[in-house]
Amino acid sequence: MKVRVIVMPKAAVLDPQGNAVRDAMRHLGMPEVRSVRIGKYMEIDVDGQNGDLEARLRGLCRDLLSNPVIEDYELQRSSASAKATARHREISKEK
Amino acid sequence: MKVRVIVMPKAAVLDPQGNAVRDAMRHLGMPEVRSVRIGKYMEIDVDGQNGDLEARLRGLCRDLLSNPVIEDYELQRSSASAKATARHREISKEK
Repeated sequence: MKVRVIVMPKAAVLDPQGNAVRDAMRHLGMPEVRSVRIGKYMEIDVDGQNGDLEARLRGLCRDLLSNPVIEDYELQRSSASAKATARHREISKEK
Repeated sequence: MKVRVIVMPKAAVLDPQGNAVRDAMRHLGMPEVRSVRIGKYMEIDVDGQNGDLEARLRGLCRDLLSNPVIEDYELQRSSASAKATARHREISKEK
């Protein structure tokens, strides 16, 4: 199973990295840029599919992959080869 | 217009940050984790919609937001008023 986790700073939290990129983009010929927010994107490849896997994954998202005080996470299950993100090598379907 | 940019290390490039997270996850009760790759996720809010905007955005993705030697980027346009942290991955393929 392939899982994608997106961790973003909460809306109320300042994102200085995003602001720096926004200013750089405005400087480099895109004055239309209104805002930029930057987070992390994780592609996790997991063996198996069983039910409690997702619950455990969510636990780890909360405890390890994000800081719930200042970040939100989003967990997306992607079926084997579905999404655009799977430009990478096709993962085998079995397991 | 809201645009999402995902920047990931190329498949052939080592991702030590991802490996560290993989090991940590295995340690913390998820031995099923096979691999983790970590990239950046940017939500960019841009005024306007006109045609050459996307071309310019792609230029900036290449020149500013990613390092094409070791990273791939993916640019997704998301339809008009989708929330910043849209819970669902609504990726409108049509313009």
